[in-house]
Amino acid sequence: MNTGSELLLGTTLNTHGAWMGMELLGLGLRVQRQTTVPDGEAIITALGEAMERSDAVIITGGLGPTSDDISREAAAEVLGVDLITDEAALRSLEAFFASRGRPMAESNKKQALNPVGADILPNPNGTAPGIYAPPRMSGDRLCALFLLPGPPNELRPMFRAEVLPRLRALAGVSGDYQMQVLRCTGVGESDFHQDLDVQLNAIEGLEIGYCARPAEVDLRLIGKAEAVRKAASIAQAAFPEQCFSACDENLEQVLVRLLSEQGKKLALAESCTGGRIASRVTDVSGASQVFTHGFVTYANEAKVEMLGVPADVIERHGAVSEEVAIAMAEGALKSSGADIAASVTGIAGPTGGTEDKPVGTVWIGIAIAGKSYAVHRCHNRGREVFKQVVSQTVLDFLRRELLANSK
Amino acid sequence: MNTGSELLLGTTLNTHGAWMGMELLGLGLRVQRQTTVPDGEAIITALGEAMERSDAVIITGGLGPTSDDISREAAAEVLGVDLITDEAALRSLEAFFASRGRPMAESNKKQALNPVGADILPNPNGTAPGIYAPPRMSGDRLCALFLLPGPPNELRPMFRAEVLPRLRALAGVSGDYQMQVLRCTGVGESDFHQDLDVQLNAIEGLEIGYCARPAEVDLRLIGKAEAVRKAASIAQAAFPEQCFSACDENLEQVLVRLLSEQGKKLALAESCTGGRIASRVTDVSGASQVFTHGFVTYANEAKVEMLGVPADVIERHGAVSEEVAIAMAEGALKSSGADIAASVTGIAGPTGGTEDKPVGTVWIGIAIAGKSYAVHRCHNRGREVFKQVVSQTVLDFLRRELLANSK
Repeated sequence: MNTGSELLLGTTLNTHGAWMGMELLGLGLRVQRQTTVPDGEAIITALGEAMERSDAVIITGGLGPTSDDISREAAAEVLGVDLITDEAALRSLEAFFASRGRPMAESNKKQALNPVGADILPNPNGTAPGIYAPPRMSGDRLCALFLLPGPPNELRPMFRAEVLPRLRALAGVSGDYQMQVLRCTGVGESDFHQDLDVQLNAIEGLEIGYCARPAEVDLRLIGKAEAVRKAASIAQAAFPEQCFSACDENLEQVLVRLLSEQGKKLALAESCTGGRIASRVTDVSGASQVFTHGFVTYANEAKVEMLGVPADVIERHGAVSEEVAIAMAEGALKSSGADIAASVTGIAGPTGGTEDKPVGTVWIGIAIAGKSYAVHRCHNRGREVFKQVVSQTVLDFLRRELLANSK
Repeated sequence: MNTGSELLLGTTLNTHGAWMGMELLGLGLRVQRQTTVPDGEAIITALGEAMERSDAVIITGGLGPTSDDISREAAAEVLGVDLITDEAALRSLEAFFASRGRPMAESNKKQALNPVGADILPNPNGTAPGIYAPPRMSGDRLCALFLLPGPPNELRPMFRAEVLPRLRALAGVSGDYQMQVLRCTGVGESDFHQDLDVQLNAIEGLEIGYCARPAEVDLRLIGKAEAVRKAASIAQAAFPEQCFSACDENLEQVLVRLLSEQGKKLALAESCTGGRIASRVTDVSGASQVFTHGFVTYANEAKVEMLGVPADVIERHGAVSEEVAIAMAEGALKSSGADIAASVTGIAGPTGGTEDKPVGTVWIGIAIAGKSYAVHRCHNRGREVFKQVVSQTVLDFLRRELLANSK
C-alpha cells in the first residue's frame, strides 16, 4: 500500500509497487493487491480492509515529521494499540541529526513513536525508522504489517535488510527457489517471442517474464535452480552478443569491469548526451581507476578547443557528422592518453532539426589503438529517452570493442 | 483501478494512475483511491468494493481478446446485467482490422460485448472499445463506471474525448480550482513543520502536502485560486531564498532560464559528480545556448591538463581540497571563456575515504567575474544520493550567484 497525495495527483510516479513486486518475486511471493491512498484518514480505512484479506501488508510513506504523515497513527488505530516513544529509536534519531550537524526539530520526535508490540526497523539512510508488527489475527486470518519510509534510498535498503528475511521466514519459502535476470541490448522484446519463448516455456517449473527499457530488454527467469540454469544457457546461446549480463549488472558496470580486467583507460567526448554517459560510468564504484577524462563539448568552439577538432571539418560537414564524430573520438583519445575513446554528436531536440538531419540524428565515434570509425543512428523519442538510448548504444559499442579485443 | 499482473510483478510501471490524476486535477477532481489487481477474478471483488465507496470508478485494462481479459465480464457481474454484442462496435472492429489488411480473429468478437444499459466509447486507436455505465445505485450511493483500454496510446485519447466531459458534467465542476507546487532546496521537511504549517492550515479551503526528495522539498498547495495565492505568498516569504520555483520548474530549468535571461555562459568542472551536473543542465531544452564547456576531470592528470590546476597544489593540499576546487573553477572559467563556472571535487565512496577526509567529503568551487570561492560539504549517503545531493547544491549555488548578480 503506497501513501501520498502526490502519487494520486500525478505529480510523482509510483515506482515502489513495481520495485517491491520484483523483489518479492525473487522469493516466489506475489503481490495480490496494490492500493494507493492520499495522505490522511483514508489510510486507516484502506489498511483495515487490506489486513483482513492479506497475510502481510506493506505500507510505504507517511512516516515523516509533518502533519500529513499519519501511517504510524493509522497502524496503531487499526492494530488497536497505543503509540509509545521507542527510546532506542529516539536516540538514533538524535544521533542522525548530530552526525549532520543539524539540530533536531521538535516535530521529528514523533518519528520515534511505535505501536505497542511492534518492532522498530533501523533506517541508516534517513530519519524515519520502519515498523514491523508481527502476525496477529485480523478478521479470520493472521496478518503481519510493515511500515516503511517513502524515499527510495531509505525504502530499498530497509526492504532488503529487514522485510525480505522476515517474509521469507513467514512464508516458509524454500531456499532453492531463485530468480536470474539476463540483460540484453540490441534486441527488441518481440525478438524473444519467437522460438526462444517456446523453448523456455517447455522447461518445467520455470516462469519467465520480460521487462523492456529504453534500448534494453531484461529476461527474468524464476523457478528451481536447475530450471533457471537450463533456461539461462538456452537464452544466452540464442543471443550471445546481445546478452551483456547474466547477473543483473547494468551496461556501465559491465564496461567498468571489462576496462579494469584489461587494465585499459577510457575517455569520453559528449555533445548531445551532455555528460550523461560520463555520469553513468562514474555511477560505478571504482570508475576512477579506468575513466580519466570526460569532455562535454556542447558548443562548436569547445569541440575545437578541447578536442582539437579542425574548425574547417565542422564548417564543411556540420557538427553532426561522421567526420566530426571521428575527430572528436580521436581528439579525446589523443589529449587524454586513454586506450579507448567514444564520442557522440547529435540533435537531441526538440528544436535544431533540419530536412536532412532531423531531430534524433546522432553520430557515435569510437577510437581505439590505431583504428577509428563512426556509426549513424536516429532516435526521435524525446530528449530524455534520446539521451538514455544513445548512452546505451555508446556503452554497448565500447563493451563489444573490449570483448573483441580480449579474444 | 488498474488491472494487469505485469503491474504487480513489477515488470511494468503503472503510469496510468499518475497521468489520470493530473488530468482529473484540472477539473478539481481528486482520485480517492487507486487499486491494482492481477488479471482475473480479483477484478470482480475489487470493483464491487470500489463502486460502494465511490461516485465514479475508472478501470483500465482487461478489455483485450485473450482469456485473462475479463473486465467486461466483471463489470456485467457487478452491475448485475447481461453482456450483449453491440452491433455498431462489432462493425467498427471489423472495419479496424480491414483498415490494417488483417483478418479479424474469432477471439476479437468478445471485444464488441457490452453490459446491458452501458454505452460504447469509440476507440480510434485500437481494437478495444471503451464502456461507460451511467450512474446507478451501488450500496447507498450513485456510482458511474468507465472501462478503458490499457495501452496508453488508446487510453489517453479516449480519456480526454469521452471520460473528462462526462465527469465534468457529473461533478458540475467549477473552474477556479487549482494546484501550485513550490520547490525548495536548502531546507528540511521538518523546517516547514514549524509555524509555517500553522499559518497555512489556517487558510480556509486549502490543502497542503509535502514531497521530500534528495536535497529538495516540494510544497504542494491545492484549493481555490485565492487560497492558493495567499498560501504561496506566505510560504515564499518564509523561505525567500530556499524556494527556487513557484511554477514547478526543477533547479536545472531555473538555472538555464536565469543564464538565458542574463545572456551568460556556464562552464562546469566535475570530479566526483562525474558529469551528472552537466547531464542535468543539458536535460533542459535550450541548454546549448548557455552551457558551452563541461570538464569531467576524474583523474588528477585531467585536472592539470584540462583545467590547468597546478600539480603542486594537488600535491600539497590533496585533490579534495578548497584550493583545488577553486583552481578547478577558475581553470574552467579561463579555458572556456564562460561568465560563470562551478567545480566539484570530493569522495563519492564507498571507498577512498580517510581519517580527515571521510567518504562524502566534497568541496564546491564557484568562479564568477573576478571572484572565486569554495564551500565544504559532507554527504555520506551512498554514491547515487551523493551525486544527486551534490549536484543540487552546485546548481543552487549557481542560481544564487546569478540572482545576486541581477539585483
